[in-house]
Amino acid sequence: MKKIITISREFGSGGRSIGKLVAEKLGVSYYDGELIEILAEETGFSKEYIEQNGEYSPGNSRFSYAFVGRNIDGMSITDYLWFEQQKKILEIAEKGPCVIVGRCADYILRERNDVFNVFIHAPVAERAKRIVEVYGETDVAPEKRLREKDRKRAVNYKYYTDEEWGRAKQYHLTLDSSVFGIEGCAQLIAELSQKV
Amino acid sequence: MKKIITISREFGSGGRSIGKLVAEKLGVSYYDGELIEILAEETGFSKEYIEQNGEYSPGNSRFSYAFVGRNIDGMSITDYLWFEQQKKILEIAEKGPCVIVGRCADYILRERNDVFNVFIHAPVAERAKRIVEVYGETDVAPEKRLREKDRKRAVNYKYYTDEEWGRAKQYHLTLDSSVFGIEGCAQLIAELSQKV
Repeated sequence: MKKIITISREFGSGGRSIGKLVAEKLGVSYYDGELIEILAEETGFSKEYIEQNGEYSPGNSRFSYAFVGRNIDGMSITDYLWFEQQKKILEIAEKGPCVIVGRCADYILRERNDVFNVFIHAPVAERAKRIVEVYGETDVAPEKRLREKDRKRAVNYKYYTDEEWGRAKQYHLTLDSSVFGIEGCAQLIAELSQKV
Repeated sequence: MKKIITISREFGSGGRSIGKLVAEKLGVSYYDGELIEILAEETGFSKEYIEQNGEYSPGNSRFSYAFVGRNIDGMSITDYLWFEQQKKILEIAEKGPCVIVGRCADYILRERNDVFNVFIHAPVAERAKRIVEVYGETDVAPEKRLREKDRKRAVNYKYYTDEEWGRAKQYHLTLDSSVFGIEGCAQLIAELSQKV
């Protein structure tokens, strides 16, 4: 039995909703990228620490923090945040069964053998429809929003893991959510993770 | 219900065995790359045709045919064979439910909406063990054989489809056969193809 389920996903494929459903079905904890970011900030990434240690030099802007571009002990804030999140994900995995969506958790937990790695995707047309339904319209065309988000996720994954994002061989299971449906994907992941 | 199942696979992942099992379970026809090649040769690719029409100029060596490098009506033999195989796969799909392993069948049948596309992969160590079991030892280390075969499949897929081989988004379902097992993968594909 794999007790930790990681879900990577294309933007708009419903991966987050699927992750929540899987956690509900299995009665385990659910974490997504935002939550991990908050937890990492709370523990290691305090404003005080930054004020005490922060160097005010420009850096690699990856997240939209007010303090992006500043350095801590020679490390860019984004890399520092990455290490804090990595630590947090390793801690979360130690605590017990859970579902983790995003944040390269598949890569971070690669040394464990109780992890089930899933990737969720869907055709552009289906995802465009979904992001308008879920997040509403913006000035930017949904197809363009998808391309930008996917590109960012791919670049981020490559930067931190040196692997290609979305390659089948990175995952035990990948599913096209437009074919199986949100509920169908969740059911399948919940079932299979308990079998393998 | 998807009545045609295409299976793409990494060398040594057991994709062919899985395909055969799926066809047995569903009681439908089974075709793999070799069989399609033979069928295509029988119908359109006769020796007589080549003798009558072949131009003896060097070309792009992709398959190990004795006549690779010769041309038919300005088309390289490999491209000609590709078109014959493509025609054959389209014909096979017209005939009814079946399982097709290899030969970019997912791409060739992309206009149909009754096709279920699957990709099978496994970690290198597992595949190396399997190819020695199934095909025996050779002078070349199994890891090297895997790399060469995978590279050829990727180049071939890119050349004819202009898409990346093994990207999750090309397939409705991808499975790591080292996690689910040969029988487990076959069972899952047979079941899911009837549901979606």
